[in-house]
Amino acid sequence: MAVEMRLVRIVISEISDGQFVYLREVDGAREFAMVIGLFEASRIDLRVRNERPPRPLTHDLIVNIVESLGAELDSVIIHELKEGTYYAKLRVKRDGEIIDIDSRPSDAIATAVCSDPPLPIFVEEDVIDESMQQTE
Amino acid sequence: MAVEMRLVRIVISEISDGQFVYLREVDGAREFAMVIGLFEASRIDLRVRNERPPRPLTHDLIVNIVESLGAELDSVIIHELKEGTYYAKLRVKRDGEIIDIDSRPSDAIATAVCSDPPLPIFVEEDVIDESMQQTE
Repeated sequence: MAVEMRLVRIVISEISDGQFVYLREVDGAREFAMVIGLFEASRIDLRVRNERPPRPLTHDLIVNIVESLGAELDSVIIHELKEGTYYAKLRVKRDGEIIDIDSRPSDAIATAVCSDPPLPIFVEEDVIDESMQQTE
Repeated sequence: MAVEMRLVRIVISEISDGQFVYLREVDGAREFAMVIGLFEASRIDLRVRNERPPRPLTHDLIVNIVESLGAELDSVIIHELKEGTYYAKLRVKRDGEIIDIDSRPSDAIATAVCSDPPLPIFVEEDVIDESMQQTE
């Protein structure tokens, strides 16, 4: 079962390698953090602060490509945690069919926040369980 | 008229804001440089050095999205230089039709080098002229 979560916090430290995004259950209190790269974190942060650069940034380009190809971004699912690495999929709808595209969670979340309206983010129940064990 | 050019040099300086990519005519000697962001420059550099990260990076994701949607990346065209800003398009082929997608040149070039084989990069003749005047 996948649970809808939302981005609640981004912690950016330019002097460390790992930036953090925190996801929290929409209908609950469970929360966990994922380490992502500085670039993706800055882009997510920029968008969350509602800044609109004059030219399309990389994840805006992703949104534009999907739309130009007659498809529609549907959602993001973080479906696996293996050896400390999270695996996500970008779900795209075309002609009524869902197409899953392998993605790092950071790109998937950046694409989610660049979409208008933002895409829902789902996380598989066992990924939440494992993440919470790691955080504790 | 658009002229095919190739990426000949990337200059990355982590302490300055601007990184440079140099394009040179495939059938000639004209060359010019564009300033791009550090992230895009690092990603282009990584790919040019043939490094393959274990997970798809952002521009690999772009390539995967286009392919998953049954389309094909065709080429990159840098078609305008206005007030110091270069404008590019990512050309995608679907059902025999070419679809142009507005892109920063940095994302377009990063997508070009992430494609296998790399996409050809075209630059409009007047953009080359203006760029060469600026460089001189």
